[in-house]
Amino acid sequence: VPEVPSRAEVVGWDAGDPLAAVRERYLIPDPELIYLDGNSLGRPALAAIEALRHAAEVEWGAGLIRSWDDWARLPAQVGDLLAREFLGAHPGEVVVADSTSVNLYRLLVAALDHRAGRDCVVTESGNFPTDLYVVDGVAARRGLRVRRIAADLDEGFEPGAVAECLDDSVAVVTLSHVSYRSGALADMERITALAHEAGALVLWDLSHSVGSVPIRLADTGADLAVGCGYKYLGGGPGAPAFLYVRRELQERIVQPVWGWFGQSEQFRMSDRYEPRAGIGRFLVGTPPVLALRALEAGATQLAAAGTARLWAKSARLTGLAVDLTDGWLTDHGARLASPRDPARRGSHVCVAHPRAEELTARLIEGGVVPDYRGPERLRFGMAPATTRFVDVWDAWDRLRGLLAGG
Amino acid sequence: VPEVPSRAEVVGWDAGDPLAAVRERYLIPDPELIYLDGNSLGRPALAAIEALRHAAEVEWGAGLIRSWDDWARLPAQVGDLLAREFLGAHPGEVVVADSTSVNLYRLLVAALDHRAGRDCVVTESGNFPTDLYVVDGVAARRGLRVRRIAADLDEGFEPGAVAECLDDSVAVVTLSHVSYRSGALADMERITALAHEAGALVLWDLSHSVGSVPIRLADTGADLAVGCGYKYLGGGPGAPAFLYVRRELQERIVQPVWGWFGQSEQFRMSDRYEPRAGIGRFLVGTPPVLALRALEAGATQLAAAGTARLWAKSARLTGLAVDLTDGWLTDHGARLASPRDPARRGSHVCVAHPRAEELTARLIEGGVVPDYRGPERLRFGMAPATTRFVDVWDAWDRLRGLLAGG
Repeated sequence: VPEVPSRAEVVGWDAGDPLAAVRERYLIPDPELIYLDGNSLGRPALAAIEALRHAAEVEWGAGLIRSWDDWARLPAQVGDLLAREFLGAHPGEVVVADSTSVNLYRLLVAALDHRAGRDCVVTESGNFPTDLYVVDGVAARRGLRVRRIAADLDEGFEPGAVAECLDDSVAVVTLSHVSYRSGALADMERITALAHEAGALVLWDLSHSVGSVPIRLADTGADLAVGCGYKYLGGGPGAPAFLYVRRELQERIVQPVWGWFGQSEQFRMSDRYEPRAGIGRFLVGTPPVLALRALEAGATQLAAAGTARLWAKSARLTGLAVDLTDGWLTDHGARLASPRDPARRGSHVCVAHPRAEELTARLIEGGVVPDYRGPERLRFGMAPATTRFVDVWDAWDRLRGLLAGG
Repeated sequence: VPEVPSRAEVVGWDAGDPLAAVRERYLIPDPELIYLDGNSLGRPALAAIEALRHAAEVEWGAGLIRSWDDWARLPAQVGDLLAREFLGAHPGEVVVADSTSVNLYRLLVAALDHRAGRDCVVTESGNFPTDLYVVDGVAARRGLRVRRIAADLDEGFEPGAVAECLDDSVAVVTLSHVSYRSGALADMERITALAHEAGALVLWDLSHSVGSVPIRLADTGADLAVGCGYKYLGGGPGAPAFLYVRRELQERIVQPVWGWFGQSEQFRMSDRYEPRAGIGRFLVGTPPVLALRALEAGATQLAAAGTARLWAKSARLTGLAVDLTDGWLTDHGARLASPRDPARRGSHVCVAHPRAEELTARLIEGGVVPDYRGPERLRFGMAPATTRFVDVWDAWDRLRGLLAGG
């Protein structure tokens, strides 16, 4: 049995944590609650609450339509913020718009048109459901084949497994960067290179990685990406999503939903669609202003914490979770269901146990909030800006108690 | 020259207005501002501001993911509210989701698939730009023909003009109920009947009519509709849109963007898409919770004012605008550019003048906010819950002054 730290030791880690003070920048009305689901819905930064209030009372209430001079810039402005701080993308390569599902659909269709003549989409068996549904919906309509890489539920997949699915019939490879279930991290650089060698475009879903691990879209040569704003970024429930299109592709692919916010000189109200230059052409309808302000403030707060410190703390938090699982839970029929190598995972881990669904419910009743994710897994998300080492220790201690018949 | 009421008379109308007290339920930080653009962005109800605060601090901040038990119902719950109070639709026929443009795209594609074999879409030349773009984008991709009814910029179009475009090649007729420019109101009942006689489906854009005129989707047999939440409904800038699908069609048409919120037993996370029964299958991504709460509160406040009273006041407000235009402005080279018959218009009117763009800017500088809409029109929106008769009188008086060389 591996050695695990004592509670006192872990409390000491928090005391020495350079991010400890950052937690005070978040609204935490019930400090007793152990919230380990920030990978599903991040806690609100105080600045996000204030940004919402200001957007509602001042920008909307007092400014009224005159505020559109500023609001119209928000999708690209918040996109540039995400590009710079979290995505490793260039200015003008990211906009905030719509939902992850809608953006995935739009970019997938655009990519497929760009690779017309190829009739296959590659994804993976454990991809997030909405990703699989979007792909299947588009494939059914266009008569395409879908190859699902048979990924391991715990470990994810190696680039080699992607390579096996690639040939000159593949138009697009679309994968999640971090698995929503296991937290397994895909090798973006290697997979992108493999897809490009086969002449396919790559479309990443960054929903579970943005704000939790380093992302280098530009350096890896990634073509397209989407992701959501309500997890680590802290944009609030149902926050708008983002999309990334590599600069060189922006005017070579055409997304299918032509709307007035993608129109050049929009307020001339031309009756013929002429999309803007650049990333703005990937906008469609009127942007969700209030939610954009919350996302902007949440992402700004997270960035201010320092991404290098966040990634380092994530690795320590999930590492503690791994050690506590190995040290305390394996004797009770539970096991780690996530990659053991910190370089291979995001900021959440799963513990598999046959009674995982019931255990999740009992933990929540007791003030510890993980998620249940089938089959038979408790999923714990560590948000380094707000999650303390002692939160992890206490949560595993409760789970140990439940498993021991408590 | 028609007789126009004096300012004192109009102040008397406000004093006797049963809706006068409703204005106090709205946030109006600058009572001197004459805001006549509620048809573009409605003012916030105090209840909407409070709902946003509660959603952010309590539901998000304290409830965290546990609030999804309530949030998951919001798209249908707010949809039912709109259906009952404003749309004349049945429970289970409306959901709130995405943007108007995205919803229009999704329903248009679904309708076209349902009428496969027909290769023409009918719309009208003066339709809102995003509607024209969505239609053109889908038509270009599918190789369809688009017929645009040549509508009059001021008066809109008669059902007879629609009839002339109909034959057995027409799959879908998609029109705005109220013209964004002139305010001209289309005859939903007659046009729907004509389209059905020709075997086409009808898809209405209700963005400029919802909350401003009576709508009877069920009674008219309308098939499909979309509309936005940020105008009269008061959902805030970029508020989510809604969509309506007549009950009998819901399981006979398939929208193209398959997402996890449309999935039956969503949190079983099945890897195969099996859409929910009913209107819920028209959802796609994670709903925008904070904005849904604002829209719910704004629409509830508007409904509480009493729709019959709202419609009656709208007609009087726009009637006053017509009379003031005729009485004061025609000698200065301006003219009414909206239907003269109150039964033929929504709750906004246009005044045409060669210097409309400059006049709009000067009015805004002086604290009167209309919109400029090309060609050469000032557009004034009357929101009967917050617009006073004296606001209209004063705005026209300012415009008269500017035209007289003031």
